[in-house]
Amino acid sequence: MPMKLYTSSVAPNPRRVAIFLAEKNIDVPIVEIDLAKSENLDADFVAKNPLGRVPILELDDGTYLAESMAICRYFEEIQPEPPLLGTDARDKAMVEMWNRRMEFEIMGNVTGCFRHSHPYWEGRIEQVADYGDLCRRNIEERMTWLDGELADRDYIAGDRFTVADMTAVSAFDLGKIAKIRIPETLVNLTQWYQRVSERPSVAATSPTRKRD
Amino acid sequence: MPMKLYTSSVAPNPRRVAIFLAEKNIDVPIVEIDLAKSENLDADFVAKNPLGRVPILELDDGTYLAESMAICRYFEEIQPEPPLLGTDARDKAMVEMWNRRMEFEIMGNVTGCFRHSHPYWEGRIEQVADYGDLCRRNIEERMTWLDGELADRDYIAGDRFTVADMTAVSAFDLGKIAKIRIPETLVNLTQWYQRVSERPSVAATSPTRKRD
Repeated sequence: MPMKLYTSSVAPNPRRVAIFLAEKNIDVPIVEIDLAKSENLDADFVAKNPLGRVPILELDDGTYLAESMAICRYFEEIQPEPPLLGTDARDKAMVEMWNRRMEFEIMGNVTGCFRHSHPYWEGRIEQVADYGDLCRRNIEERMTWLDGELADRDYIAGDRFTVADMTAVSAFDLGKIAKIRIPETLVNLTQWYQRVSERPSVAATSPTRKRD
Repeated sequence: MPMKLYTSSVAPNPRRVAIFLAEKNIDVPIVEIDLAKSENLDADFVAKNPLGRVPILELDDGTYLAESMAICRYFEEIQPEPPLLGTDARDKAMVEMWNRRMEFEIMGNVTGCFRHSHPYWEGRIEQVADYGDLCRRNIEERMTWLDGELADRDYIAGDRFTVADMTAVSAFDLGKIAKIRIPETLVNLTQWYQRVSERPSVAATSPTRKRD
């Protein structure tokens, strides 16, 4: 069986995998799952991932691998160049730290705000409006922190584009739907966002890109 | 400068690192940070980690490495045996998948419930009681799913004890404080919990262990 990626071209976590594959110039056959039609909850999809989440990678041996970062790690292991999860022990750990920080501080709050405040999720999940508000306030604080961190470097984990940038840009682009914007006063963060958004891998996977 | 770990012996994320180090038989000098006294928010700690979170590892070169999983990855890289993050590409990816699932489905819901429902956090964070309730219901559902997954294997990611087990056992032990218990009817999960809790690395780091 050839490898196959079940994914959604509009959701932020699958986008991390799409950027990762583009940076590595790896081409994997795609099966598009329509989240708006809840195709991720269909019986045949749930048989592949009981948690009903995209993306999942079907390996050559028929194993289904879920979780965006697990899929990224698989590709990093089978094709290390260019390194997107770090180089030596220290750098791998620093990239992991920054990616985790982007997941918890940025993506987690953006997702929490989107899921608990946006009409898209009405009836799909149990929304807690006060939690959405809390996440919105958290993200404003975290953006200020991140802006300070970016004062001395071009990318989140250092001088190289890594998975930490993929996580953050995917989160900020999702945030637009929930009216979360990077304030222009945060100059370092604004410049980082522009720099990263211009990369071909990021531009080609933007949720607002022109479709063919 | 010799390596040093700033940590708390009672918190669940630091505990993952403590179990990890015990499994690898690595001894690192510890600086205990008293979270109840908010020592993690003291100026000299925040200078090391602006997010005010434990644990952080001070490397020989003076770098501060935050995030439990980043610290675990560092030690896995410098001392691969015994492998706790997987062996080959496929296994590393599967361990990452299962660890992520334990983080998001189990630890995330236990932490959400604890933080948003327990008196310990009153005045420390803005609590949203309805969100705590939602997490409590989520965890009950996720325990049933995990019990089914454990029908055919001894450990969460397969036949070997890995970081995914460390994340899950740390979460379940934290859950006790928030009155989250594994129901006895979930036989596979109950047996897994007993099996894992008896490991020396897990028993020695239990929050309810006898202190010297």
